[in-house]
Parts: sequence; C-alpha cells; structure tokens
Amino acid sequence: VVQYVGVRHVVRVIAETGLSEVLAGLAAYIEEDFRRWESFEKTPRIASHSRHGVIELMPVSDRRLYSFKYVNGHPHNMRDGLQTVTAFGVLCDVETGYPRFLSEMTITTALRTAATSALAARYLERRDASTMAIIGLGAQSEFQAVAFKTLLGISRLRVYDVDPAATRKFVANLADRGFDIVVAGSAQEAVLGADVVTTVTADKRRATILRDEMVGEGVHVNAVGGDCPGKTELQRELLLRADVFVEYPEQTRVEGEIQQMPADFPVTELWRVIAGRAPGRASARQITIFDSVGFATEDFSALRYLRDRVQGTDCYDEIDLVAEPSDPRDLFGLLRPGLVRTDEALAEMAT
Amino acid sequence: VVQYVGVRHVVRVIAETGLSEVLAGLAAYIEEDFRRWESFEKTPRIASHSRHGVIELMPVSDRRLYSFKYVNGHPHNMRDGLQTVTAFGVLCDVETGYPRFLSEMTITTALRTAATSALAARYLERRDASTMAIIGLGAQSEFQAVAFKTLLGISRLRVYDVDPAATRKFVANLADRGFDIVVAGSAQEAVLGADVVTTVTADKRRATILRDEMVGEGVHVNAVGGDCPGKTELQRELLLRADVFVEYPEQTRVEGEIQQMPADFPVTELWRVIAGRAPGRASARQITIFDSVGFATEDFSALRYLRDRVQGTDCYDEIDLVAEPSDPRDLFGLLRPGLVRTDEALAEMAT
Repeated sequence: VVQYVGVRHVVRVIAETGLSEVLAGLAAYIEEDFRRWESFEKTPRIASHSRHGVIELMPVSDRRLYSFKYVNGHPHNMRDGLQTVTAFGVLCDVETGYPRFLSEMTITTALRTAATSALAARYLERRDASTMAIIGLGAQSEFQAVAFKTLLGISRLRVYDVDPAATRKFVANLADRGFDIVVAGSAQEAVLGADVVTTVTADKRRATILRDEMVGEGVHVNAVGGDCPGKTELQRELLLRADVFVEYPEQTRVEGEIQQMPADFPVTELWRVIAGRAPGRASARQITIFDSVGFATEDFSALRYLRDRVQGTDCYDEIDLVAEPSDPRDLFGLLRPGLVRTDEALAEMAT
Repeated sequence: VVQYVGVRHVVRVIAETGLSEVLAGLAAYIEEDFRRWESFEKTPRIASHSRHGVIELMPVSDRRLYSFKYVNGHPHNMRDGLQTVTAFGVLCDVETGYPRFLSEMTITTALRTAATSALAARYLERRDASTMAIIGLGAQSEFQAVAFKTLLGISRLRVYDVDPAATRKFVANLADRGFDIVVAGSAQEAVLGADVVTTVTADKRRATILRDEMVGEGVHVNAVGGDCPGKTELQRELLLRADVFVEYPEQTRVEGEIQQMPADFPVTELWRVIAGRAPGRASARQITIFDSVGFATEDFSALRYLRDRVQGTDCYDEIDLVAEPSDPRDLFGLLRPGLVRTDEALAEMAT
C-alpha cells in the first residue's frame, strides 16, 4: 500500500502542527541529511526544456531510501492563472524497489526551499542580523519570511515587488504573524540597512535585481530566484566581491547565479559548512551569498519529514498504486474476475 | 485536477474492455508513436543501481505531452513474496508543466511489453508462423501469449519453465482462452518446431536460455528477459547468425542481449521497420531477433491509451496532487484556515 498526502492533507498537517513548527522540523531533517551528504548517490536533475518552460525529475538515494521529485518551471503560466511551479514526489524502499509514499510537493517545495534558505543563513548571516529585505513577493516570499523569523528571529522586513498587488497580498498574508514590514518603493530602497537580502523574483531571463553597489559590507544574500539556465538575479560584479555557497556545484554552475561565471569560479559547498568541514561566515564585513537552486536531497528530507509526520494520524490516504498479487509470478491472475473487483465492491459498499 | 487510475481501475478497464481489445488498442497506440519516432525527445533511462536491484526513471516527450515511468527491477523480491517489477507513470502537459494523469503501471507494463513484442513480430516473423515457444512462465508470460494470439493469431504454444508451479499457473491462467498448449520437458524440447521463440526468464545474470544450435532457419526470437546490464538469455553465436532489431540502440547496447557484442554490432531500429524506412523480415530462412528491453515511448503510448480509454467512464479517481490557488502567486493563501479545509469538510460530509 502506498501512502498518499495530497494538497488538502499537507494543508491539514500545517494547520495542525503550526507553520513554524513544520519549518523548524523540515530544517532539522534537511540539516541532518546535509551532514551525511557523502552517503547520498547524487545526480544533477534531468531536465526537459521546451519553449514553454522546463520539466525536471530530481532523483536521489541514500541507499536505504530513494526519492524523486517531479517539478516544472513555466514562467508564463501566471498569465493564464496557473502556477509557475508545481511539484510532487515519491519515497521508495531501495531494498524492494517498492514506492511507499507519494506527496504533493508544490506547497512542500516552497516550505523546504524556505527552510533551506534559513538553515544556510544560520551559518552565513551576521550574528546580529535583524532586518531582511525581500525582493520579489510571489508565491515563495511569505514562506521565506516565516522561515527566517522561525529559525533566526528576523522579524523586520523591507520588501519590494514591481507589482503592487503582489505587495498587498504579501502584507495581508503576514498580518498577525508579528512582523514589522516596511514597503519600499524600489529594490534599492528595500535593501537599505538590511542585514540579509532575499531575492526571489520569477522572471525567466538574465535580470539584475541586485546590483553590486546596492550591497554593503557584512550582508548575506539569499539568492533564490535564479535557478535555471538563462535566469539570474545578481550582477556579476557582486559575485566577484562575495563568498558564494552552493548546494551541489555540478547543478548550480548550470542553473544558479554562478552560471555567469567561469567553470572554476570558487564556491563552497553548503554541506561542508554544516558538517563543520569548511568555515561559513568568517568576518563581520564579508559578503556571503547562498546561491540557492534547490537540490534533490532537500526534497528527500522533506518527504522523510512528511512521511514521519503523518504516521499515526489520518492526514494521508492509502492508494492502490502498486499491484499486490498473492503470488508475485501471477500478475495475470489479478485479471481473474472477482479478485480485485471484490475489494472495490467492498470499498463501494463502505461509502 | 489529476486523474488517477490505480490497480483496481486498470483491472476494471481490462474486464470491461476485454484483454484482447486492450492489447490491440495498446499495440495501435504504440505503433502510431513508433511511426513518429523522430518527433520524440528521447533519453536513456536514469538508473539507480543497488545490491538489491535497480530503480529507474524513464522520461520522454513529444513536445505536447511529457511522460515518465518509475520502474524497479529486484530479482530477489520473489523470495519474499514480492514482485520483481513494479511501476507507475505520469502524463503531463508540456505547455503548462502540470501533471494530468497518474496510473499504476505494473500490470500496464506487462500489457505494453506484450503488445510491443507482438507488434514487432508482425513485421519480423514468417507469414506462416503458427507455433510459439515460451521459455520462462513468470509474471509476463501469459500477457505475451494473449498478445500473440490477439495480434497474430498464434494459438499453438510450446512452453517450459524450470519451476513446475510456474507452468501450472500458466496453464491454469490460459484455460478457456483457446490455446493449444504443449508443456515441454526442457527449453530445447519447447523450441522444437516453433516459428517464434519468446524468452522471458527472470534471472539477473548472464544465462544461456537459448543456444545457437537450438534455433533453426526462419525462426523469429522475441527476447524479452534480457533487459538490464549483466542479464542476458541468448548465446552470442545466435546473435551473430541473426538480424537483430532494437527499440533505442543507446539503451539496448547497455541493457539488451547485444550488451554481449561490440559497440558497432549492426542492429536495425524497430521504428524504421514500422515506418517503412528499413526492411523487416527479408527471407523465409532468415533468423530475426527482437532484442526487447522496453523503451519510454511505449509507456508514453500506454499512458495515452489508458487516459483516452477512461475518459467518460468512472474508471478513474480525481486526486489533489497539485495545489490550485485562485491567485497563482498566493500559494501561502492556501494555508489560511477554512480555505482548503472547507473542501475537505464537504468531502467528509459527502461520504
């Protein structure tokens, strides 16, 4: 039997657990898996590009569990009232190859991305950081804000979006969550005095959301929006001035901000910082950049968290995704009238 | 909304449509997609090997639809009463990146493998072929038999398995389906006088199920069981004597019978035969081999067939795999109490 957590159940898990607790729980699972980075079989995601966008599969395994996520990126979807990103994922047993757990991951990806950003910032931002600028107030933005408040206590926000409607949505969604929000008139104004700058815009092109001169000493840049070939947010000069931290270099060099840089541009792998093998922030004046593109281990961690979280609750369904013939060689026998249909008749009687 | 066809619904589709009609329908979809082979974006499957077996993702796209299949191969599963192969697949819109259709594919893979074998044989077997040998009477065997009877009218079978229980299961499952079945005492005895030889054993090792001297002139060999690195069924000398037809050479040279041969061993792509670009069988004395490993387009075709087949029926469920916020930028808004939970409360009231 495969456990299935759809959108309604993920929303219920969040409502019953509390968003902050979920983000903290996710961050703990993600951190645990980053610490044992070397035990994972990793591969860059497998992308299928079209003129409309990209569809990706992101598999990973720790040799006990295997997971993959399906995720798309379609910047023009919003024009038609559809989401830019949708996702779902599956957790499977390596020993048997059987899928065990299927979950929506549109909401869950937003959660795990925000949890990863806040986790990285814990190692990279100044200890006295108290104000975050957020540029781009789309689907991911509130999750980033709540994650930084939960994990790092940052409650002062300076925010900007080219679209005032996005700004209104952001402010309304975070009302009563204890934030002090300043709405800025430009990206430049938003970053003034901010200790952390989160860029999370949606345009699929080389944009310069953050110019070099906008970023002062000691700032940590959480660069979330630049995450596929041709899509960047930071000016090249800023990357040259900063220390750049990445998830999986093989993938980030293709998809991240550093796609603008030569193949040998120096980066530090985040897992090494988390595992104590490399320094994070080294001085109060250093500019740090987390060049986030999202990696399969984070989805693996998120699926593990969700699976563990729903056990013993009614926040999942059981679905018949896998045939279970009583004799494994007798798959054909499942077609015998009465065998499987009896189950269904029973299910129909129960409803 | 994502349409979901689980095991129970696939069994119902087969029961209500008839197995022969399903196999014929599948073969027609597979043939149609082979004919337009060049319109597909193709890639070898992405495999994750462990000491227990292999887990694979098989993506493919025709630039309007994208599909992938998850499939495992765990030869030792049977020891624990589990299936060697389980699978499921998803069909998605390339234009929006949204997943649309999720289906079990354990039964469906057996169906599409058999339909592909029979389709290939239509171009490769002798016109007067009337008898098929089947060596290996595991989970796939009955599907092969019914597909060859449906598509090619072959009803005389000569069968062999090392395990008498597998043979009993095979004979019982095909009772009342109009076959004339001879149970042979060895593989060698089974192939005597057969026009088509289907090898579909399950051992994950280099085996020699079919030796060169066992195969006479004019025979078509449908080699189904050798389908991953290290797993073959045919003796090398037989491959040298025959003309070999494959699905996707990049994959078959790694996984198929021809993994035993040098990288430049000549093969013909099946799609070229089906599209009329290359000859199939050229003479009555030729030995032909379909070195089947299964390719992603066949799953794409099978998912298309199933999706089309269940429209307008009640043979599917609708599942909430994708979040659908009314404003696509307002994913966070889905977490507002009452929004999604109301739907659920309604669903609960309806039950």
